[in-house]
Amino acid sequence: MRVLGVDPGMTRCGIGVVDGAAGRPLTLVHVEVVHTRPDEEIGLRLMAQADAIARAIEQFAPDAVAVERVFSQHNVRTVMGTAQVSGLAILAATRAGIPVALHTPSEVKAAVTGSGTAGKAQVGSMVTRLLRLTEAPKPADAADALALAICHVWRGSAQSKLATALAQSRAVSARAASSGRIAR
Amino acid sequence: MRVLGVDPGMTRCGIGVVDGAAGRPLTLVHVEVVHTRPDEEIGLRLMAQADAIARAIEQFAPDAVAVERVFSQHNVRTVMGTAQVSGLAILAATRAGIPVALHTPSEVKAAVTGSGTAGKAQVGSMVTRLLRLTEAPKPADAADALALAICHVWRGSAQSKLATALAQSRAVSARAASSGRIAR
Repeated sequence: MRVLGVDPGMTRCGIGVVDGAAGRPLTLVHVEVVHTRPDEEIGLRLMAQADAIARAIEQFAPDAVAVERVFSQHNVRTVMGTAQVSGLAILAATRAGIPVALHTPSEVKAAVTGSGTAGKAQVGSMVTRLLRLTEAPKPADAADALALAICHVWRGSAQSKLATALAQSRAVSARAASSGRIAR
Repeated sequence: MRVLGVDPGMTRCGIGVVDGAAGRPLTLVHVEVVHTRPDEEIGLRLMAQADAIARAIEQFAPDAVAVERVFSQHNVRTVMGTAQVSGLAILAATRAGIPVALHTPSEVKAAVTGSGTAGKAQVGSMVTRLLRLTEAPKPADAADALALAICHVWRGSAQSKLATALAQSRAVSARAASSGRIAR
């Protein structure tokens, strides 16, 4: 499956695209960080981020879009811009008819490093290893967007398997119930 | 001038349109509250709000869009949705080429009631009086969107006058400077 990860931010928004499946090697498809200037008008900054996300979704046609879940406990000064850009990313995916998943920063860290409290350097180092790159994607927003995509490849596959397993088990129960009825 | 005010919210988003100018009676053009259900997918909720805001901007062609400035000190549970919808409103206005202004809740309250700490009932009562309505717009989000629009009609007009005055004073200085240069 192909996942596009978005690490939302007004000044720097990371967009990373990864191909992969649980238990198979991952491949880097694309990574970019979209910058806007703090002295620009907020509307123009939001438009630049919205356009970049929509363009990436159109160009790379992911099976799912994973966006970092924003909490208000974050840096108070920047959290509003982060929330606004996350909304644009969720909307862009929804408009394109692509499923959206939200993952918390600790879910992402735990997925790629094994620890929900891992630092930026550790996340960057694991992303580099998992995607078999020669150096860590820079700035950190690039690595974070790829980590989100990787997290979703793994969780998404697990969830799909679970959904399939559940559907199969329901089918088995339904068959058992119907043969029960036949026997009665 | 015609102003479209947006009181952003994920569950209820107020949209109000007012015609007016400083020192002249105000007229209600339109008011609506767009509801989305908390059990719906976030992407569909954002799309419903974005579409409603874009539709109102297209239909009523305001000269300016005024959006409530969201602070993270607000209700933590709902602030992320509020921030996301405010971003959509700012983006919709920017895409339509309409100037956007952000006003804080206390600026809005001070503009319509004279007190930055006025309660909802007082804001609703003043909006009713200023727009010469027979009863207060309900729910509170409707009155808040209209209060935002009224606040901007008054501040916007004052700002326009200030801008005009500044431009005129610059023109006078420039003339003085150039006649100075001529005299030298």
